[in-house]
Amino acid sequence: MIDPADLSALDRYRLLTGTIVPRPIAWITSVGTEGAEEIVNLAPFSFFQGVTATPATVMVCIAHRDPEKDTLANLRATGEAVIHLVPPALLDAMHASGAEYPRTVSEAKALGLATVPSERIRPPRLVGTQVAFEVRVASITPVGTPPTSLVLLEVVGVHLDPGITAADGLPDPARLRTVARLGGDHYLDPTTWSLLHRARQRRPAT
Amino acid sequence: MIDPADLSALDRYRLLTGTIVPRPIAWITSVGTEGAEEIVNLAPFSFFQGVTATPATVMVCIAHRDPEKDTLANLRATGEAVIHLVPPALLDAMHASGAEYPRTVSEAKALGLATVPSERIRPPRLVGTQVAFEVRVASITPVGTPPTSLVLLEVVGVHLDPGITAADGLPDPARLRTVARLGGDHYLDPTTWSLLHRARQRRPAT
Repeated sequence: MIDPADLSALDRYRLLTGTIVPRPIAWITSVGTEGAEEIVNLAPFSFFQGVTATPATVMVCIAHRDPEKDTLANLRATGEAVIHLVPPALLDAMHASGAEYPRTVSEAKALGLATVPSERIRPPRLVGTQVAFEVRVASITPVGTPPTSLVLLEVVGVHLDPGITAADGLPDPARLRTVARLGGDHYLDPTTWSLLHRARQRRPAT
Repeated sequence: MIDPADLSALDRYRLLTGTIVPRPIAWITSVGTEGAEEIVNLAPFSFFQGVTATPATVMVCIAHRDPEKDTLANLRATGEAVIHLVPPALLDAMHASGAEYPRTVSEAKALGLATVPSERIRPPRLVGTQVAFEVRVASITPVGTPPTSLVLLEVVGVHLDPGITAADGLPDPARLRTVARLGGDHYLDPTTWSLLHRARQRRPAT
């Protein structure tokens, strides 16, 4: 048995990210200001998950850094962001957006990614994504030492590409393919996904 | 754009679970008591994610039910559990453990799953899994209405199958295959995974 307390912080991180797999990726646009100019920040986070349905709430954990990551600073300052799932065609752009750009540089602009205005919030959303959540910060809670920020976000609007929905307008699991994070420097190739269906059981099989 | 507030609670849930994909699965053993007898409860949860590395911390969200789910009641009462990732060979057992067994029934026993004692906590771990975290509850926070319980858990011990580790004893992304949750009644078949490698970038490519 491995006692995580015996490992370096980096190896503890590798242990968690190498075992809690595959992880969905929150690819986040947020807005910062540089003088009079608005900067559209863009960065990926894989400690991302649903929390509850009412109100529709998701969480993203943002690790400590000094100075803190632009996304976290923008979430604190504005309370708004767009969370995109990553379509296969944008894997390389998503990966590139994880590099350490200066705060004054818009990753979206630097990577040539087009955006369109959101409906309820200031940060724009990326063109060419299949799923985009317009979100508002519900809470930011420090966890651990140095403190990671556990951010709860309320989903105030959802944009779905018509190509991934069923007749009722909700997502069709057979149509959506998203890039997921594995351990190390690896992603899961969504183009090779195959689905296994298991009928829901309310009562134990007899 | 879909306003989640316009949907039924069930459709809001379907919207989140159909888009935040693929989700790793926390397959959790916990212990309850029935008179003098110990009952090993076993259930799967897919709102599961890493949170931070120091201390090693993960989260599981457990939706409201009345009476509350056995796993949540046990976590409140004992503060301990084992979280397993699901190997391909145990997909059907994991799926079956999600049915609503009476509180007095051990899903592990009913499904014929062998367990072995943990090292630091009371709940046993399942034989035949590749990754098992011995965990202790750090906090339980209600979110939303009716309240989902956002449970933070500190990882106090990690069991890794030698078949999934690299020479340094940490997980090898190329060797670990785990069952993940997709929308609806679907799982992602881990036997068909393929990996995409992208070298880590600290600085933007020039």
